[in-house]
Amino acid sequence: MGARKVSSDEYLFDPDLLKNLDWGSVINCLNPPITNETPGEPWLLVRPLCISDYNKGYVQILSQLTTVGNVSKTDFERQFMNMRKAGGYYITVIEDTRINRIIGASSLITEFKIIHNCGIRGRLEDVVVNNTYRGKQLGKLIVLTVSLLAKKLGCYKMSLDCKDSLIPFYKSIGYKLEPGNANSMITRYEETSKPVDPS
Amino acid sequence: MGARKVSSDEYLFDPDLLKNLDWGSVINCLNPPITNETPGEPWLLVRPLCISDYNKGYVQILSQLTTVGNVSKTDFERQFMNMRKAGGYYITVIEDTRINRIIGASSLITEFKIIHNCGIRGRLEDVVVNNTYRGKQLGKLIVLTVSLLAKKLGCYKMSLDCKDSLIPFYKSIGYKLEPGNANSMITRYEETSKPVDPS
Repeated sequence: MGARKVSSDEYLFDPDLLKNLDWGSVINCLNPPITNETPGEPWLLVRPLCISDYNKGYVQILSQLTTVGNVSKTDFERQFMNMRKAGGYYITVIEDTRINRIIGASSLITEFKIIHNCGIRGRLEDVVVNNTYRGKQLGKLIVLTVSLLAKKLGCYKMSLDCKDSLIPFYKSIGYKLEPGNANSMITRYEETSKPVDPS
Repeated sequence: MGARKVSSDEYLFDPDLLKNLDWGSVINCLNPPITNETPGEPWLLVRPLCISDYNKGYVQILSQLTTVGNVSKTDFERQFMNMRKAGGYYITVIEDTRINRIIGASSLITEFKIIHNCGIRGRLEDVVVNNTYRGKQLGKLIVLTVSLLAKKLGCYKMSLDCKDSLIPFYKSIGYKLEPGNANSMITRYEETSKPVDPS
C-alpha cells in the first residue's frame, strides 16, 4: 500500500473492501482498462480516506467542487470520526504518491432500508478529480471504484444527482435517467455556523 | 403521546426532536394549518418509528410504495437496530390510534459532509400515506414534519428524488428543481437475498 506505513485505524473503512472488485462487469467503460488496483501509473494509489488526509489536501480538492468554508484540521478529524462511528461512509481517494497529495476522490454513502428486503442502497457523492490530471480516465476510475464497492456490499442500487453537463459522463459508465423518474428536488436552508450534533 | 405508554428505547430517535418545529415558515403550504403536534384529528399521532411498529403495519404500508419483499419481524427489528446504532435515521410515522395502525410515513436520512463547513445534509425517502386517508393534507404534513426536522438539526439542504407526477406536490411545499442541476441517475444491481453486513 505505498511506501509509508499506514496504521489501519487511520482509514475510514477497511482497505480490503477495495480488493477484487468486479471490474469485468465494466470492462467496456475504460480504454485502456485500468482498475483501482492497477490505476495506470505506478505512482497513483486508490485507497480509503485517512484521517491524516487533511494534510494531503483532501479538503482543498473538495473546494473545486462547491463551498467548503473554513474547515480546520480539528473540524475535519471530528467529522471523520463521526463518519467512522456511524458506518456507511466509504470515501475513496486517489493519491499521487510522488507528492503525497490527494488528486481525486468520490464517496459512496450507504443507507439501510426496510424496502427491498431490508436492503442497502448506495449514493454517489462529492466526486472530484484535479484538473491537471485529465486524460487519465481518473474520473471514471474513482466513480467506478465506489460503484463496484456498492455492488460488492450488496446494494440493490446506486444513485447520484448531477448537472445536465455531466449526464453523458455518467451514461458512459452505466448510469441511467429512468424515464419519468429522474428528478432531484431540493430545499436549501440558511447555513448556520455549526449544525446541532444529531446524535 | 396517546393512551399507550411507550418506553423511550422503543423509538428510533428522540421524540422531543419533533417538538416546536418551525411551522411558521411553511404556514402558506397548509390550509387549514395543521402541524405534527396538531395533525387535524385527535386520533392521529405523529411520532418516530417504534420497533413495535412491525405489528402496526409499517412494513405493509411501504408495500404501497415499492418492492418490500418478505420482511420478517426479526429482519425488521435487526434493521431498526442497525439504523438506531448508526444514527441519522429519522423515520417518522402517522398512527391512527383508534385502530393502532400506521397510516403514513416518511424518512429523513442525514449525512455528515466535509463540504459546507463539515455540514449535514438531509434526504427525504420512502414517503407514503394510506389512500383511504386522502384529503387530510397528511402527505404534506408528514413531508413537512421531517423537512422541518432537517432544518432544526442544522441541515444546509434537504433533497429528494421523485417521479414527474409528484413535482407539483413537492413544489407546493417548497421544493425546487434547480435549473440545469436536477437530474437523478441510477444503476441497479441484481438483488441478492441478503446484503453483506457493511459494518
